[in-house]
Amino acid sequence: MVRVGVLAASGYIGGELLRLLLQHPEVDVVAATARKYAGEYVFRVHPNLRGMTELQFTPLDASKLTGSCDIVFAALPHGESVMVVPQLADAGLKIIDLSADFRLSDRGQYPSWYGYDHPRPDLLEKFVFSIPEINRDQVKGATLVSSPGCMAITAILALAPLLKEKSLGIDRDHIVVDAKVGSSGAGGKPSLSTHFSERFGVVRPYKPAGHRHSAEIEQVLASVSGEKVRVSMSAHAVNMVRGILVTSHIFTSGPVNPIDIWKAYRSMYTGSYFVRLVRDKHGPFRLPDPKLVVGSNFCDIGFEIEERTGRLVALSATDNLIKGAAGNAIQSMNLMLGFDEKTGIAMAPLHPV
Amino acid sequence: MVRVGVLAASGYIGGELLRLLLQHPEVDVVAATARKYAGEYVFRVHPNLRGMTELQFTPLDASKLTGSCDIVFAALPHGESVMVVPQLADAGLKIIDLSADFRLSDRGQYPSWYGYDHPRPDLLEKFVFSIPEINRDQVKGATLVSSPGCMAITAILALAPLLKEKSLGIDRDHIVVDAKVGSSGAGGKPSLSTHFSERFGVVRPYKPAGHRHSAEIEQVLASVSGEKVRVSMSAHAVNMVRGILVTSHIFTSGPVNPIDIWKAYRSMYTGSYFVRLVRDKHGPFRLPDPKLVVGSNFCDIGFEIEERTGRLVALSATDNLIKGAAGNAIQSMNLMLGFDEKTGIAMAPLHPV
Amino acid sequence: MVRVGVLAASGYIGGELLRLLLQHPEVDVVAATARKYAGEYVFRVHPNLRGMTELQFTPLDASKLTGSCDIVFAALPHGESVMVVPQLADAGLKIIDLSADFRLSDRGQYPSWYGYDHPRPDLLEKFVFSIPEINRDQVKGATLVSSPGCMAITAILALAPLLKEKSLGIDRDHIVVDAKVGSSGAGGKPSLSTHFSERFGVVRPYKPAGHRHSAEIEQVLASVSGEKVRVSMSAHAVNMVRGILVTSHIFTSGPVNPIDIWKAYRSMYTGSYFVRLVRDKHGPFRLPDPKLVVGSNFCDIGFEIEERTGRLVALSATDNLIKGAAGNAIQSMNLMLGFDEKTGIAMAPLHPV
Amino acid sequence: MVRVGVLAASGYIGGELLRLLLQHPEVDVVAATARKYAGEYVFRVHPNLRGMTELQFTPLDASKLTGSCDIVFAALPHGESVMVVPQLADAGLKIIDLSADFRLSDRGQYPSWYGYDHPRPDLLEKFVFSIPEINRDQVKGATLVSSPGCMAITAILALAPLLKEKSLGIDRDHIVVDAKVGSSGAGGKPSLSTHFSERFGVVRPYKPAGHRHSAEIEQVLASVSGEKVRVSMSAHAVNMVRGILVTSHIFTSGPVNPIDIWKAYRSMYTGSYFVRLVRDKHGPFRLPDPKLVVGSNFCDIGFEIEERTGRLVALSATDNLIKGAAGNAIQSMNLMLGFDEKTGIAMAPLHPV
Repeated sequence: MVRVGVLAASGYIGGELLRLLLQHPEVDVVAATARKYAGEYVFRVHPNLRGMTELQFTPLDASKLTGSCDIVFAALPHGESVMVVPQLADAGLKIIDLSADFRLSDRGQYPSWYGYDHPRPDLLEKFVFSIPEINRDQVKGATLVSSPGCMAITAILALAPLLKEKSLGIDRDHIVVDAKVGSSGAGGKPSLSTHFSERFGVVRPYKPAGHRHSAEIEQVLASVSGEKVRVSMSAHAVNMVRGILVTSHIFTSGPVNPIDIWKAYRSMYTGSYFVRLVRDKHGPFRLPDPKLVVGSNFCDIGFEIEERTGRLVALSATDNLIKGAAGNAIQSMNLMLGFDEKTGIAMAPLHPV
Repeated sequence: MVRVGVLAASGYIGGELLRLLLQHPEVDVVAATARKYAGEYVFRVHPNLRGMTELQFTPLDASKLTGSCDIVFAALPHGESVMVVPQLADAGLKIIDLSADFRLSDRGQYPSWYGYDHPRPDLLEKFVFSIPEINRDQVKGATLVSSPGCMAITAILALAPLLKEKSLGIDRDHIVVDAKVGSSGAGGKPSLSTHFSERFGVVRPYKPAGHRHSAEIEQVLASVSGEKVRVSMSAHAVNMVRGILVTSHIFTSGPVNPIDIWKAYRSMYTGSYFVRLVRDKHGPFRLPDPKLVVGSNFCDIGFEIEERTGRLVALSATDNLIKGAAGNAIQSMNLMLGFDEKTGIAMAPLHPV
Repeated sequence: MVRVGVLAASGYIGGELLRLLLQHPEVDVVAATARKYAGEYVFRVHPNLRGMTELQFTPLDASKLTGSCDIVFAALPHGESVMVVPQLADAGLKIIDLSADFRLSDRGQYPSWYGYDHPRPDLLEKFVFSIPEINRDQVKGATLVSSPGCMAITAILALAPLLKEKSLGIDRDHIVVDAKVGSSGAGGKPSLSTHFSERFGVVRPYKPAGHRHSAEIEQVLASVSGEKVRVSMSAHAVNMVRGILVTSHIFTSGPVNPIDIWKAYRSMYTGSYFVRLVRDKHGPFRLPDPKLVVGSNFCDIGFEIEERTGRLVALSATDNLIKGAAGNAIQSMNLMLGFDEKTGIAMAPLHPV
Repeated sequence: MVRVGVLAASGYIGGELLRLLLQHPEVDVVAATARKYAGEYVFRVHPNLRGMTELQFTPLDASKLTGSCDIVFAALPHGESVMVVPQLADAGLKIIDLSADFRLSDRGQYPSWYGYDHPRPDLLEKFVFSIPEINRDQVKGATLVSSPGCMAITAILALAPLLKEKSLGIDRDHIVVDAKVGSSGAGGKPSLSTHFSERFGVVRPYKPAGHRHSAEIEQVLASVSGEKVRVSMSAHAVNMVRGILVTSHIFTSGPVNPIDIWKAYRSMYTGSYFVRLVRDKHGPFRLPDPKLVVGSNFCDIGFEIEERTGRLVALSATDNLIKGAAGNAIQSMNLMLGFDEKTGIAMAPLHPV
């Protein structure tokens, strides 16, 4: 059994990592750190895990982790991970970081998007930004992996095959990424914004411009297309806890054919269990909807073409805590450790829920 | 007291018209038609009105309406209104039509958007497409008025001032209108799509391309700007009953200044009570959100600028049954009849709700 | 115009008082106190009121209030109101208190239910506990009024007529009051309990035993029945913002007849506009449901009889912020000042919402 | 591998059976019947299963099932199951029936509760009413099993240990069972009652008296206590899809001690993985809440004591589609077939969701 540690295990992503790892047949969870809850039973913070584990939170002690763990998931906040992870990496631990601190390969992006100069640019080259459906082979050989932001991975999975396929003639300057997200992506810290009476029933445009995930998306799209891509992203909070729908509005230089879109998606995703192409003729389930992936590691992708305006609308849906975070990270671990990619994360979505 | 009739009064828009008109100080509701419920008390279909009216539904009888009403609100479905309204119009009744059947001034648009040849193109010229904040004076003199679709009016109110102001350099070919709407806009007819267990928690892209409201929006934007405008619209169902948020992604030829945007909005909306400009520095209420207009005739408008991508994000929110339908129609009636525009519809939104 | 002040106007009850009073035709709101927000515009805290008032919050200054107001609504927390209200009362101001501090006529109840010795028991005799549907005449003559808790008034309106009618043979020792309430009743202060991700979708038994409103309910039931009554109350938080449903399970000594129940209700509520008796044969609206009173001052009441178990189930629904708080208080004010009871609060519920 | 069939597999319980059985390591799903959808892919009706199975629905053909299946789950409606199941039983198939048609051992109860004379009373003796936590040994030896109603099992698990323990002095005539349930329990058939705009935000008392699950509850409680028990049950629809909270209000002849209640629960449930006793001192998770069991087979049980009124409030929460239906049925299958009780159903709840 592989010995696993989870850093910042008291948050929602940490909790989801614990939930999935505790049920994973190939690993033992040996550490769950959370300064604030050190000594507390995990199930008091994550009540779903009551009866399933007697694990207790511990303080984050790098030297102890080095000795007790084979691999570590770091779910620390941006800016904090970069203070902790390097020493674990230097000590040779396998690491899967879920913060933004090792996602961008260009150190020059950190000051503008995250407000700090990256202290360890050498590590930026070593971390693999992992979306197995796109760079599975790279992930297999990696020891240091960075897992994308929840909206970023959802957008990227819909956009990358289209940008890669040059014959589609995508206008790379007017790509609109309009995201609708549940509350769990914002974490577990109470505030007026997240107070139930104020948050219930909203469609709140909380980040209409300047969203940080733009940088990750542009990085991957530039990489697959070989050209600079500009993404215009807006994020909205909607009335649910889990799930993301990303609507990508894409303009093309000429008419596009559904078959060509299908081909682009299939050529990238055939063999990728966790991407489902969804495009039925009718019914309430004919296009992606986060409701239909809740509880699973699936990313559903579909599209519509509007000839009149020369527009292609790509739609993608994930459970933000699974494919958007913990699930993608565990999928990456499976690849790094040589397990079947699906091990421990192949559960079906709940429906209805 | 003005004698008012409501056609198709059993639907959600009909119910909202009744709710507001029954409390309106200048009118008497003398007829509420609904074939299916003829003879039934109104409060059995609209349970909120229990104890507030003993009105009963009647069948739609044009000749009776002509005798008993001064003005009629028609909330009939598209395609049905056009079969009924002409004879009422010919008989000299004042009419406010809430269907799409008299919204488009160009008869040539009906076959492609609505699938029928308009039988009375002469009436298309006589009907005023009413958004009082934009064409108040026209509405004042009108006897035949058409009220916009709920998403259309919400989008138009955010976009019209921007398109009108040429110095902003709006790219008229890449205007993305991404709408998030509550369930009530889809009406009261049960189906698998609207079955609670299937509809709860969705972000369902039910009309990503080809939405009919595109035509109305383009019509008004072309009118205020004097040039052809192409609107790329997508509509999503979200987890609430009332409300619309429209996110309009607009590209500009050069940098724009917040002050110029403010000016554009103020020059059109100063003196318009029902438009609120919302753009605070922080807090959960700093931008428009349908939650904050529920129960009112307000349209909240705000914006953000993303210099990096040359994008302006305009945000607008309404209660789809009020400013998006019944409220705008009654506001139009107030103008047509010489009342204060706000009469009977100046109620504050509910908060929290 | 009557000059009105609202104390603790930044909370949800305070906001609802402001919303309704600003639209009330007979009053001017001259003061809205909120220590924390002194100097801030009211509409920044209550975003629904944007565009409707330029009022600003002020600190609570008793001497200023005495000079500027004719009547004051106090929406202060329990324990705080009793420190502030007495000096206003002593100065001759008319007062409507919405806290629990003047609800119980027996000073002996305060230590056990609220944990303090009442400092002004003389005032307990002077305050009228106001439920106009039950003691309208008393309220008319009052200058000091206490308005019930939201769950208490909802339960009392369903129970009082039954307890008053001795022939029904109610078992006064096994009355179960099972309440389901929205989040707004818990106020506007963020916490882990009210954090959206934790609060969404719950049926949380937050006070299964020992709920303080038991005392108010028992007080009124004892008063109308002339005998001691024991109420077994449990409160649950459910997935909505506004509204209360109280299910009262009542056992009877012998079989009861629907007609007798009707009679009991009608004999108390005929002429009371804000109580609606709801008991249809079929359909989704056949019994009270808070969804159908949202936005109104109505209390809907209905019942079912279960012969097999000798049980009568009484159901009552209110909007907790209106009939459960601000609406009942304004209704009381209307009576105290000689206005029509319905003035400013006769609006219809919103439906659907 | 055991060959399994699911009858009426297109409904929500059928879908949940398929979801769990498709992931069960010891079984093969060889048949999923649904007249209406015969020939259709399962994933078109249960969109969560897209990508997970190529199974198609078939018509219900008893002779085929007999040949191809070792065990059958019947999720047919009440009244329909009794027409189909007997021939399968007679043919020697192992059967787990999820309808009410074989739950009541007393044939005399069927006319009053279900409106029909039971055609095969001989089978009523042979079917084991399965709640493994209560009668595990009986289930182990059974070939014909009946699984309880979702509200029934949730109530029974909280009540049975208390009724069994005579020293607690439970008043068997005034047991109030107040249930709050999500929409999925009502099935997948659209109607006005379940139309999203009408169903969203409700607390609807849809069956305040005469609920059929009363019969099952009384049957088990009489069995464990050896005496007649009368249950006063009311059911309410609340604003969620999955989950049940049952609040049981129980009166005792004298004071009870928390330790005695703990003992009663532990003596029945020690060793039962799927019952979790939940009673913390503070925090939002201190008592059972269906939100905390969604996606799992757990039944959480907790309680509060109200000395003043001599009342014990027992609280129990389940996911109605899992422990309330499919999960309990599969748990029963595991026992019948000699597998570990937890096989395939030990997944953790999702949190937050």
